[in-house]
Amino acid sequence: MAEYTPPLARLIDELKKIPGIGRKSAQRIAFFLLRNERRNALALAEAIVQAREKTFYCSRCNNVTSVDPCEICSDPGRDAGTICVVEEPFNIQSIERTGLYRGTYHVLLGTLSPIRGIGPDELRVAGLLRRVEGGGTREVILATSPTTEGTATAHYLTEILRQYKITISRIALGLPIGADLDYADEVTIAKAIEGRLEVK
Amino acid sequence: MAEYTPPLARLIDELKKIPGIGRKSAQRIAFFLLRNERRNALALAEAIVQAREKTFYCSRCNNVTSVDPCEICSDPGRDAGTICVVEEPFNIQSIERTGLYRGTYHVLLGTLSPIRGIGPDELRVAGLLRRVEGGGTREVILATSPTTEGTATAHYLTEILRQYKITISRIALGLPIGADLDYADEVTIAKAIEGRLEVK
Repeated sequence: MAEYTPPLARLIDELKKIPGIGRKSAQRIAFFLLRNERRNALALAEAIVQAREKTFYCSRCNNVTSVDPCEICSDPGRDAGTICVVEEPFNIQSIERTGLYRGTYHVLLGTLSPIRGIGPDELRVAGLLRRVEGGGTREVILATSPTTEGTATAHYLTEILRQYKITISRIALGLPIGADLDYADEVTIAKAIEGRLEVK
Repeated sequence: MAEYTPPLARLIDELKKIPGIGRKSAQRIAFFLLRNERRNALALAEAIVQAREKTFYCSRCNNVTSVDPCEICSDPGRDAGTICVVEEPFNIQSIERTGLYRGTYHVLLGTLSPIRGIGPDELRVAGLLRRVEGGGTREVILATSPTTEGTATAHYLTEILRQYKITISRIALGLPIGADLDYADEVTIAKAIEGRLEVK
């Protein structure tokens, strides 16, 4: 049986490595990239390279950025006294879309997950504690997803943050248990921020 | 509201141009490419560039190839007297996977579609006629999809190929293997009855 010509077969193979993209989708995307305007395909290739070369994690909050500290951390209009803790950099975008939150963020780059061998040392927790110890923090909002792992992470952070004279809050109202923050709508997320409860 | 850092925003925008990839999928793929091993992301970018630079349509059959004529057209083990006409290059792979067909192909690069302004001149029909006129063709198998457009294309090709002393055939239309007669539509059942084969 005849196979795809090697450059095409290789492109399909590389596309299949992306989670959620199977053989059929990879094939459709590859043919789209071949059939579509040449500059669009090359622009995508260039965008991948640039995104890898020019972005890194903010040294303060671990947001994906191309300047350090990131635009949010260095924005004087934002309240540095409030830190919203999220799992992943793209969670920041979900919260930003509500237009409600004017504090800063701290990205953990994951959640506690004993089953996958992810403990506190694998997360960016130390940096969060350094920020709190540095002073000026009034409140830490725990905005991990209300999944098993996100909840465990919030509990863990509550315990280790208790020693500081700060308010610890957990987003609460609006997000159904088991949902993924990444898929929640803006209104739901806004309600969750408004309805946060202090952890006693 | 804070936006994604420009290199990341640009990558998401480029990914969104791919049909079937929306904002959410584009975001997930972008973050996968940032979080995954650097060499994987760069390999994908390179594969896109190489696929665009190294592949083109076979001058004979319009298959996507990196050598001209393509591997199928230049394979002496294949029967050049039989031409299977398909809509797109990836249709060749579907037929090759059966392991049954040993003839050659002709890719139309589309179907007739008056509604989208695609007439015979927009398809690679002239090349097919040149191949038939060149002699040596015994049979043309019309393997366009049994959709409205694919069927219209097959009818059109039947009309213009009638002038040549060749066999023109259409892939059988009927019930797919594993289908339940109870759930098949009337047109499919009618086609299955029309196309019945005598059991010997």
